[in-house]
Amino acid sequence: MTDISLIAFDADDTLWVCQTYFEAVEKAYCELLASYASADEISKALFATETANMPLFGYGSKAFMLSLLENATRVSDGLLTAEEVMKIINLGKGLLQLPGKPIEGVEETLKQLRNSGKYHLVVFTKGELLDQENKFDRSGLRPYFDDIVVVSDKTEESYYRLCEQFGVKVDQLLMVGNSFRSDIEPVLKLGGWTAYIPFHTIWQHEVVDEYDHSHLLKLDEFTQLKGLL
Amino acid sequence: MTDISLIAFDADDTLWVCQTYFEAVEKAYCELLASYASADEISKALFATETANMPLFGYGSKAFMLSLLENATRVSDGLLTAEEVMKIINLGKGLLQLPGKPIEGVEETLKQLRNSGKYHLVVFTKGELLDQENKFDRSGLRPYFDDIVVVSDKTEESYYRLCEQFGVKVDQLLMVGNSFRSDIEPVLKLGGWTAYIPFHTIWQHEVVDEYDHSHLLKLDEFTQLKGLL
Repeated sequence: MTDISLIAFDADDTLWVCQTYFEAVEKAYCELLASYASADEISKALFATETANMPLFGYGSKAFMLSLLENATRVSDGLLTAEEVMKIINLGKGLLQLPGKPIEGVEETLKQLRNSGKYHLVVFTKGELLDQENKFDRSGLRPYFDDIVVVSDKTEESYYRLCEQFGVKVDQLLMVGNSFRSDIEPVLKLGGWTAYIPFHTIWQHEVVDEYDHSHLLKLDEFTQLKGLL
Repeated sequence: MTDISLIAFDADDTLWVCQTYFEAVEKAYCELLASYASADEISKALFATETANMPLFGYGSKAFMLSLLENATRVSDGLLTAEEVMKIINLGKGLLQLPGKPIEGVEETLKQLRNSGKYHLVVFTKGELLDQENKFDRSGLRPYFDDIVVVSDKTEESYYRLCEQFGVKVDQLLMVGNSFRSDIEPVLKLGGWTAYIPFHTIWQHEVVDEYDHSHLLKLDEFTQLKGLL
Protein backbone atom coordinates (compact mmCIF):
# COMPACT_ATOMS: atom_id res chain seq x y z
CA MET A 1 0.00 0.00 0.00
CA THR A 2 2.82 2.38 -0.81
CA ASP A 3 0.82 3.91 -3.63
CA ILE A 4 -2.22 5.20 -1.73
CA SER A 5 -3.43 8.57 -3.00
CA LEU A 6 -7.05 8.70 -1.86
CA ILE A 7 -8.08 8.07 1.73
CA ALA A 8 -11.84 7.83 2.25
CA PHE A 9 -13.32 7.92 5.73
CA ASP A 10 -16.62 6.63 6.94
CA ALA A 11 -18.31 9.25 9.13
CA ASP A 12 -20.65 7.83 11.79
CA ASP A 13 -18.72 5.97 14.50
CA THR A 14 -15.45 6.49 12.63
CA LEU A 15 -15.03 10.28 12.79
CA TRP A 16 -17.69 10.97 15.42
CA VAL A 17 -19.97 8.99 17.73
CA CYS A 18 -23.39 8.10 16.31
CA GLN A 19 -24.72 4.62 17.12
CA THR A 20 -24.61 5.32 20.86
CA TYR A 21 -27.17 8.11 20.33
CA PHE A 22 -29.40 5.88 18.22
CA GLU A 23 -29.29 3.27 20.97
CA ALA A 24 -30.15 5.88 23.60
CA VAL A 25 -33.14 6.97 21.50
CA GLU A 26 -34.26 3.36 21.11
CA LYS A 27 -34.02 2.87 24.87
CA ALA A 28 -36.08 6.01 25.57
CA TYR A 29 -38.59 4.84 22.93
CA CYS A 30 -38.96 1.45 24.60
CA GLU A 31 -39.50 3.17 27.95
CA LEU A 32 -42.12 5.47 26.40
CA LEU A 33 -44.01 2.46 25.06
CA ALA A 34 -43.38 0.22 28.09
CA SER A 35 -47.09 -0.06 28.90
CA TYR A 36 -47.71 -1.73 25.52
CA ALA A 37 -44.90 -4.30 25.32
CA SER A 38 -41.49 -5.30 26.70
CA ALA A 39 -38.36 -3.52 25.49
CA ASP A 40 -37.22 -6.74 23.88
CA GLU A 41 -40.45 -7.17 21.91
CA ILE A 42 -40.45 -3.52 20.83
CA SER A 43 -36.83 -3.64 19.66
CA LYS A 44 -37.31 -6.87 17.77
CA ALA A 45 -40.39 -5.48 16.02
CA LEU A 46 -38.54 -2.24 15.30
CA PHE A 47 -35.71 -4.04 13.55
CA ALA A 48 -38.23 -5.94 11.42
CA THR A 49 -39.98 -2.65 10.55
CA GLU A 50 -36.69 -0.94 9.66
CA THR A 51 -35.64 -3.85 7.48
CA ALA A 52 -38.98 -3.91 5.65
CA ASN A 53 -38.83 -0.14 5.08
CA MET A 54 -35.20 -0.12 3.90
CA PRO A 55 -35.90 -0.26 0.12
CA LEU A 56 -38.19 2.78 0.40
CA PHE A 57 -36.66 4.77 3.25
CA GLY A 58 -32.95 3.92 2.97
CA TYR A 59 -30.50 4.68 5.79
CA GLY A 60 -30.54 7.61 8.17
CA SER A 61 -32.28 9.50 10.91
CA LYS A 62 -35.50 10.38 9.09
CA ALA A 63 -35.87 6.78 7.96
CA PHE A 64 -35.36 5.71 11.58
CA MET A 65 -37.95 8.23 12.86
CA LEU A 66 -40.57 6.98 10.41
CA SER A 67 -39.93 3.36 11.37
CA LEU A 68 -40.13 4.28 15.07
CA LEU A 69 -43.56 5.82 14.43
CA GLU A 70 -44.87 3.00 12.26
CA ASN A 71 -43.67 0.40 14.71
CA ALA A 72 -45.25 2.28 17.62
CA THR A 73 -48.70 2.13 16.04
CA ARG A 74 -48.24 -1.63 15.76
CA VAL A 75 -46.78 -2.51 19.16
CA SER A 76 -49.36 -0.30 20.88
CA ASP A 77 -52.07 -2.31 19.16
CA GLY A 78 -53.59 0.91 17.86
CA LEU A 79 -53.56 2.67 21.22
CA LEU A 80 -50.66 5.04 20.52
CA THR A 81 -51.53 8.62 21.51
CA ALA A 82 -50.77 11.93 19.78
CA GLU A 83 -48.60 12.89 22.74
CA GLU A 84 -46.50 9.77 22.26
CA VAL A 85 -46.22 10.52 18.53
CA MET A 86 -44.86 13.96 19.30
CA LYS A 87 -42.42 12.57 21.87
CA ILE A 88 -41.09 10.12 19.28
CA ILE A 89 -40.70 12.89 16.70
CA ASN A 90 -38.76 14.93 19.23
CA LEU A 91 -36.49 11.99 20.03
CA GLY A 92 -35.77 11.75 16.31
CA LYS A 93 -35.14 15.47 15.96
CA GLY A 94 -32.45 15.04 18.59
CA LEU A 95 -30.69 12.59 16.27
CA LEU A 96 -30.72 15.21 13.51
CA GLN A 97 -28.82 17.52 15.83
CA LEU A 98 -26.05 15.22 17.07
CA PRO A 99 -22.96 17.18 18.02
CA GLY A 100 -20.69 15.38 15.52
CA LYS A 101 -17.89 15.85 18.04
CA PRO A 102 -14.75 14.15 16.68
CA ILE A 103 -13.68 10.95 18.45
CA GLU A 104 -10.43 11.32 20.41
CA GLY A 105 -7.38 11.40 18.20
CA VAL A 106 -9.34 11.95 14.98
CA GLU A 107 -8.62 15.63 14.51
CA GLU A 108 -4.85 15.43 15.20
CA THR A 109 -4.56 12.46 12.84
CA LEU A 110 -6.46 14.18 10.06
CA LYS A 111 -4.36 17.29 10.51
CA GLN A 112 -1.17 15.28 10.08
CA LEU A 113 -2.50 13.46 7.00
CA ARG A 114 -3.63 16.76 5.52
CA ASN A 115 -0.33 18.49 6.21
CA SER A 116 1.60 15.69 4.55
CA GLY A 117 0.04 16.86 1.27
CA LYS A 118 0.25 13.32 -0.06
CA TYR A 119 -3.41 12.34 -0.15
CA HIS A 120 -6.86 13.31 -1.28
CA LEU A 121 -8.98 13.05 1.86
CA VAL A 122 -12.73 12.52 1.53
CA VAL A 123 -15.64 11.65 3.79
CA PHE A 124 -17.59 8.79 2.21
CA THR A 125 -20.83 8.09 4.01
CA LYS A 126 -24.25 6.65 3.39
CA GLY A 127 -27.62 7.91 4.55
CA GLU A 128 -29.36 11.22 4.24
CA LEU A 129 -27.69 14.06 2.43
CA LEU A 130 -28.62 17.05 4.57
CA ASP A 131 -28.20 15.21 7.88
CA GLN A 132 -24.69 14.04 7.00
CA GLU A 133 -23.68 17.46 5.66
CA ASN A 134 -25.02 19.16 8.78
CA LYS A 135 -23.10 16.79 11.08
CA PHE A 136 -19.98 17.35 9.01
CA ASP A 137 -20.32 21.10 9.47
CA ARG A 138 -20.90 20.76 13.20
CA SER A 139 -17.88 18.47 13.55
CA GLY A 140 -15.49 21.23 12.50
CA LEU A 141 -13.59 18.68 10.38
CA ARG A 142 -14.40 20.19 6.97
CA PRO A 143 -11.01 21.98 6.63
CA TYR A 144 -9.20 18.63 6.59
CA PHE A 145 -11.14 17.18 3.68
CA ASP A 146 -11.36 17.74 -0.05
CA ASP A 147 -15.03 16.79 -0.09
CA ILE A 148 -17.89 14.84 1.45
CA VAL A 149 -19.64 12.27 -0.72
CA VAL A 150 -22.97 10.89 0.48
CA VAL A 151 -24.38 7.80 -1.23
CA SER A 152 -27.61 5.91 -0.68
CA ASP A 153 -25.63 2.70 -0.08
CA LYS A 154 -21.97 1.70 0.02
CA THR A 155 -21.78 -0.82 -2.79
CA GLU A 156 -18.81 -1.94 -4.86
CA GLU A 157 -20.12 0.29 -7.63
CA SER A 158 -20.27 3.33 -5.36
CA TYR A 159 -16.60 2.81 -4.38
CA TYR A 160 -15.65 2.39 -8.01
CA ARG A 161 -17.35 5.68 -8.85
CA LEU A 162 -15.61 7.38 -5.93
CA CYS A 163 -12.24 6.35 -7.37
CA GLU A 164 -13.29 7.58 -10.81
CA GLN A 165 -14.34 10.91 -9.35
CA PHE A 166 -10.87 11.44 -7.90
CA GLY A 167 -9.11 9.97 -10.90
CA VAL A 168 -7.37 7.21 -8.93
CA LYS A 169 -7.11 3.47 -9.47
CA VAL A 170 -8.87 1.20 -7.02
CA ASP A 171 -5.59 -0.02 -5.48
CA GLN A 172 -4.72 3.60 -4.67
CA LEU A 173 -7.77 3.83 -2.38
CA LEU A 174 -7.61 3.29 1.38
CA MET A 175 -11.04 3.16 3.03
CA VAL A 176 -11.20 3.74 6.78
CA GLY A 177 -14.29 2.69 8.70
CA ASN A 178 -16.02 0.79 11.45
CA SER A 179 -18.42 -1.37 9.45
CA PHE A 180 -17.01 -4.54 7.94
CA ARG A 181 -20.11 -4.82 5.77
CA SER A 182 -20.15 -1.29 4.36
CA ASP A 183 -16.60 0.03 4.66
CA ILE A 184 -14.40 -3.03 4.29
CA GLU A 185 -15.91 -5.88 2.30
CA PRO A 186 -16.91 -4.01 -0.89
CA VAL A 187 -13.49 -2.35 -1.06
CA LEU A 188 -11.62 -5.64 -0.58
CA LYS A 189 -13.72 -7.18 -3.35
CA LEU A 190 -12.73 -4.34 -5.68
CA GLY A 191 -9.03 -4.66 -4.86
CA GLY A 192 -8.65 -1.56 -2.69
CA TRP A 193 -7.07 -1.17 0.75
CA THR A 194 -8.95 -0.96 4.04
CA ALA A 195 -8.35 0.12 7.62
CA TYR A 196 -10.94 -1.40 9.91
CA ILE A 197 -11.44 0.37 13.23
CA PRO A 198 -14.32 -1.34 15.05
CA PHE A 199 -16.41 0.88 17.34
CA HIS A 200 -17.54 -0.64 20.63
CA THR A 201 -21.09 -1.05 19.35
CA ILE A 202 -22.63 -1.53 15.91
CA TRP A 203 -26.12 -1.57 14.41
CA GLN A 204 -27.41 -5.12 13.98
CA HIS A 205 -27.99 -4.43 10.27
CA GLU A 206 -24.25 -3.91 9.68
CA VAL A 207 -23.09 -7.18 11.26
CA VAL A 208 -21.49 -9.72 8.90
CA ASP A 209 -18.90 -12.48 9.21
CA GLU A 210 -15.42 -11.03 9.25
CA TYR A 211 -12.24 -12.49 7.77
CA ASP A 212 -8.56 -11.74 7.25
CA HIS A 213 -7.23 -10.35 4.00
CA SER A 214 -3.89 -9.05 2.76
CA HIS A 215 -5.47 -5.64 2.03
CA LEU A 216 -7.13 -5.39 5.44
CA LEU A 217 -5.51 -3.61 8.37
CA LYS A 218 -7.26 -3.90 11.68
CA LEU A 219 -6.64 -1.00 14.04
CA ASP A 220 -7.57 -0.39 17.66
CA GLU A 221 -7.44 3.37 17.37
CA PHE A 222 -7.80 6.05 14.73
CA THR A 223 -4.40 7.53 15.62
CA GLN A 224 -2.67 4.35 14.42
CA LEU A 225 -3.35 5.54 10.87
CA LYS A 226 -0.42 7.93 11.30
CA GLY A 227 2.04 5.10 11.65
CA LEU A 228 0.79 3.35 8.55
CA LEU A 229 1.13 6.11 6.02
CA MET B 1 -25.48 30.12 -26.05
CA THR B 2 -23.63 28.49 -28.92
CA ASP B 3 -21.05 27.05 -26.57
CA ILE B 4 -23.28 24.92 -24.30
CA SER B 5 -21.64 21.62 -23.37
CA LEU B 6 -23.48 20.58 -20.19
CA ILE B 7 -27.27 20.44 -19.99
CA ALA B 8 -28.59 19.86 -16.48
CA PHE B 9 -32.22 18.92 -15.92
CA ASP B 10 -34.34 19.35 -12.86
CA ALA B 11 -36.27 16.13 -12.19
CA ASP B 12 -39.59 16.63 -10.36
CA ASP B 13 -42.15 18.40 -12.58
CA THR B 14 -39.57 18.81 -15.34
CA LEU B 15 -38.88 15.20 -16.37
CA TRP B 16 -41.82 13.60 -14.58
CA VAL B 17 -44.91 14.71 -12.64
CA CYS B 18 -44.46 15.12 -8.88
CA GLN B 19 -46.19 18.09 -7.26
CA THR B 20 -49.62 16.86 -8.37
CA TYR B 21 -49.09 13.74 -6.23
CA PHE B 22 -47.97 15.79 -3.23
CA GLU B 23 -51.10 17.91 -3.60
CA ALA B 24 -53.29 14.80 -3.82
CA VAL B 25 -51.70 13.49 -0.61
CA GLU B 26 -52.26 16.82 1.11
CA LYS B 27 -55.92 16.76 0.04
CA ALA B 28 -56.39 13.20 1.35
CA TYR B 29 -54.63 14.25 4.57
CA CYS B 30 -56.97 17.21 5.05
CA GLU B 31 -59.96 14.90 4.49
CA LEU B 32 -58.58 12.42 7.01
CA LEU B 33 -58.28 15.17 9.62
CA ALA B 34 -61.50 16.99 8.64
CA SER B 35 -63.11 16.39 12.02
CA TYR B 36 -60.33 18.42 13.70
CA ALA B 37 -60.04 21.49 11.45
CA SER B 38 -60.84 22.92 8.03
CA ALA B 39 -58.68 22.00 5.04
CA ASP B 40 -57.52 25.58 4.84
CA GLU B 41 -56.41 25.67 8.47
CA ILE B 42 -54.66 22.30 8.17
CA SER B 43 -52.80 23.32 5.01
CA LYS B 44 -51.72 26.64 6.42
CA ALA B 45 -50.43 24.97 9.59
CA LEU B 46 -48.70 22.31 7.48
CA PHE B 47 -46.78 24.88 5.48
CA ALA B 48 -45.63 26.54 8.70
CA THR B 49 -44.55 23.16 10.08
CA GLU B 50 -42.66 22.29 6.89
CA THR B 51 -40.92 25.66 6.86
CA ALA B 52 -39.89 25.33 10.50
CA ASN B 53 -38.56 21.81 9.91
CA MET B 54 -36.66 22.68 6.72
CA PRO B 55 -33.22 23.27 8.32
CA LEU B 56 -33.37 19.84 9.99
CA PHE B 57 -35.39 17.76 7.52
CA GLY B 58 -34.52 19.35 4.18
CA TYR B 59 -36.54 18.67 1.02
CA GLY B 60 -38.26 15.46 0.03
CA SER B 61 -40.87 12.85 0.73
CA LYS B 62 -39.64 11.65 4.12
CA ALA B 63 -39.34 15.24 5.31
CA PHE B 64 -42.91 15.81 4.11
CA MET B 65 -44.19 12.67 5.89
CA LEU B 66 -42.63 13.73 9.18
CA SER B 67 -44.13 17.22 8.90
CA LEU B 68 -47.53 15.71 8.05
CA LEU B 69 -47.34 13.65 11.25
CA GLU B 70 -46.09 16.45 13.48
CA ASN B 71 -48.71 18.84 12.13
CA ALA B 72 -51.45 16.25 12.65
CA THR B 73 -50.69 15.96 16.36
CA ARG B 74 -51.06 19.73 16.56
CA VAL B 75 -54.19 20.35 14.49
CA SER B 76 -55.95 17.43 16.19
CA ASP B 77 -55.27 19.10 19.52
CA GLY B 78 -53.71 15.91 20.77
CA LEU B 79 -56.59 13.68 19.66
CA LEU B 80 -54.83 12.05 16.70
CA THR B 81 -55.26 8.27 16.73
CA ALA B 82 -52.80 5.49 15.90
CA GLU B 83 -54.98 4.53 12.95
CA GLU B 84 -54.69 8.04 11.55
CA VAL B 85 -50.92 7.95 12.06
CA MET B 86 -50.68 4.75 10.04
CA LYS B 87 -52.90 6.18 7.30
CA ILE B 88 -50.62 9.23 7.03
CA ILE B 89 -47.53 7.02 6.86
CA ASN B 90 -49.14 5.03 4.07
CA LEU B 91 -50.01 8.20 2.16
CA GLY B 92 -46.34 9.16 2.41
CA LYS B 93 -45.14 5.74 1.32
CA GLY B 94 -47.17 6.27 -1.84
CA LEU B 95 -45.06 9.36 -2.58
CA LEU B 96 -41.91 7.24 -2.29
CA GLN B 97 -43.28 5.02 -5.03
CA LEU B 98 -44.33 7.59 -7.63
CA PRO B 99 -44.21 6.16 -11.12
CA GLY B 100 -41.69 8.72 -12.41
CA LYS B 101 -43.40 8.42 -15.79
CA PRO B 102 -41.78 10.91 -18.18
CA ILE B 103 -43.89 13.94 -19.14
CA GLU B 104 -45.00 13.92 -22.77
CA GLY B 105 -42.23 14.80 -25.19
CA VAL B 106 -39.46 14.37 -22.62
CA GLU B 107 -38.12 11.03 -23.77
CA GLU B 108 -38.02 11.85 -27.49
CA THR B 109 -36.30 15.15 -26.74
CA LEU B 110 -33.68 13.55 -24.50
CA LYS B 111 -33.06 10.88 -27.12
CA GLN B 112 -32.37 13.52 -29.75
CA LEU B 113 -30.06 15.50 -27.45
CA ARG B 114 -28.24 12.31 -26.52
CA ASN B 115 -27.86 11.19 -30.12
CA SER B 116 -26.40 14.55 -31.13
CA GLY B 117 -23.36 13.59 -29.03
CA LYS B 118 -22.75 17.28 -28.35
CA TYR B 119 -23.64 17.52 -24.67
CA HIS B 120 -23.07 16.07 -21.24
CA LEU B 121 -26.58 15.42 -19.93
CA VAL B 122 -27.17 15.25 -16.19
CA VAL B 123 -30.11 15.17 -13.81
CA PHE B 124 -29.57 17.79 -11.11
CA THR B 125 -32.12 17.55 -8.35
CA LYS B 126 -32.54 18.35 -4.69
CA GLY B 127 -34.12 16.31 -1.96
CA GLU B 128 -33.54 12.80 -0.72
CA LEU B 129 -30.89 10.66 -2.33
CA LEU B 130 -32.55 7.26 -2.42
CA ASP B 131 -35.99 8.61 -3.33
CA GLN B 132 -34.65 10.57 -6.30
CA GLU B 133 -32.48 7.66 -7.47
CA ASN B 134 -35.41 5.27 -7.22
CA LYS B 135 -37.67 7.59 -9.24
CA PHE B 136 -34.91 7.99 -11.82
CA ASP B 137 -34.68 4.21 -12.18
CA ARG B 138 -38.44 3.84 -12.49
CA SER B 139 -38.60 6.61 -15.11
CA GLY B 140 -36.54 4.56 -17.56
CA LEU B 141 -34.61 7.73 -18.47
CA ARG B 142 -31.22 6.63 -17.11
CA PRO B 143 -29.82 5.63 -20.55
CA TYR B 144 -30.07 9.23 -21.75
CA PHE B 145 -27.97 10.71 -18.95
CA ASP B 146 -24.32 10.71 -17.92
CA ASP B 147 -25.26 10.91 -14.27
CA ILE B 148 -27.72 12.00 -11.60
CA VAL B 149 -26.53 14.47 -8.98
CA VAL B 150 -28.65 14.96 -5.87
CA VAL B 151 -27.92 17.94 -3.63
CA SER B 152 -29.49 19.05 -0.37
CA ASP B 153 -30.29 22.46 -1.91
CA LYS B 154 -29.79 24.13 -5.28
CA THR B 155 -27.57 27.04 -4.38
CA GLU B 156 -25.18 29.04 -6.55
CA GLU B 157 -22.36 27.05 -4.98
CA SER B 158 -23.98 23.73 -5.85
CA TYR B 159 -24.23 24.80 -9.53
CA TYR B 160 -20.64 25.94 -9.49
CA ARG B 161 -19.56 22.55 -8.17
CA LEU B 162 -21.64 20.80 -10.82
CA CYS B 163 -19.76 22.69 -13.53
CA GLU B 164 -16.45 21.82 -11.88
CA GLN B 165 -17.42 18.16 -11.75
CA PHE B 166 -17.96 18.11 -15.51
CA GLY B 167 -15.01 20.36 -16.23
CA VAL B 168 -17.06 23.06 -17.94
CA LYS B 169 -17.21 26.81 -17.48
CA VAL B 170 -20.39 28.29 -16.03
CA ASP B 171 -21.40 29.88 -19.35
CA GLN B 172 -21.29 26.42 -20.95
CA LEU B 173 -24.09 25.25 -18.63
CA LEU B 174 -27.75 25.21 -19.60
CA MET B 175 -30.09 24.40 -16.71
CA VAL B 176 -33.61 23.23 -17.57
CA GLY B 177 -36.29 23.33 -14.90
CA ASN B 178 -39.68 24.41 -13.62
CA SER B 179 -38.68 26.34 -10.50
CA PHE B 180 -37.56 29.91 -10.98
CA ARG B 181 -36.20 29.92 -7.44
CA SER B 182 -34.16 26.71 -7.63
CA ASP B 183 -33.44 26.09 -11.29
CA ILE B 184 -33.23 29.54 -12.82
CA GLU B 185 -32.20 32.32 -10.45
CA PRO B 186 -28.98 30.82 -9.02
CA VAL B 187 -27.77 29.89 -12.52
CA LEU B 188 -28.48 33.38 -13.90
CA LYS B 189 -26.58 34.87 -10.98
CA LEU B 190 -23.59 32.68 -11.80
CA GLY B 191 -23.66 33.59 -15.49
CA GLY B 192 -25.05 30.33 -16.87
CA TRP B 193 -27.93 29.74 -19.28
CA THR B 194 -31.43 28.65 -18.31
CA ALA B 195 -34.52 27.17 -19.92
CA TYR B 196 -37.55 27.76 -17.75
CA ILE B 197 -40.51 25.44 -18.36
CA PRO B 198 -43.19 26.25 -15.78
CA PHE B 199 -45.37 23.33 -14.68
CA HIS B 200 -49.07 24.05 -14.17
CA THR B 201 -48.67 23.94 -10.39
CA ILE B 202 -45.80 24.65 -8.00
CA TRP B 203 -45.12 24.23 -4.30
CA GLN B 204 -45.67 27.48 -2.40
CA HIS B 205 -42.10 27.27 -1.05
CA GLU B 206 -40.64 27.61 -4.57
CA VAL B 207 -42.55 30.74 -5.54
CA VAL B 208 -40.45 33.89 -6.11
CA ASP B 209 -40.74 37.02 -8.23
CA GLU B 210 -39.76 36.30 -11.80
CA TYR B 211 -37.96 38.57 -14.24
CA ASP B 212 -36.54 38.64 -17.77
CA HIS B 213 -32.88 38.08 -18.47
CA SER B 214 -30.73 37.68 -21.57
CA HIS B 215 -29.69 34.18 -20.41
CA LEU B 216 -33.26 33.08 -19.70
CA LEU B 217 -35.36 31.22 -22.24
CA LYS B 218 -38.97 30.64 -21.34
CA LEU B 219 -40.52 27.58 -22.94
CA ASP B 220 -44.06 26.24 -23.03
CA GLU B 221 -43.02 22.67 -23.67
CA PHE B 222 -40.04 20.44 -23.11
CA THR B 223 -39.88 19.52 -26.80
CA GLN B 224 -39.00 23.13 -27.68
CA LEU B 225 -35.51 22.40 -26.36
CA LYS B 226 -34.82 20.59 -29.62
CA GLY B 227 -35.21 23.77 -31.63
CA LEU B 228 -32.84 25.71 -29.38
CA LEU B 229 -29.82 23.50 -29.57
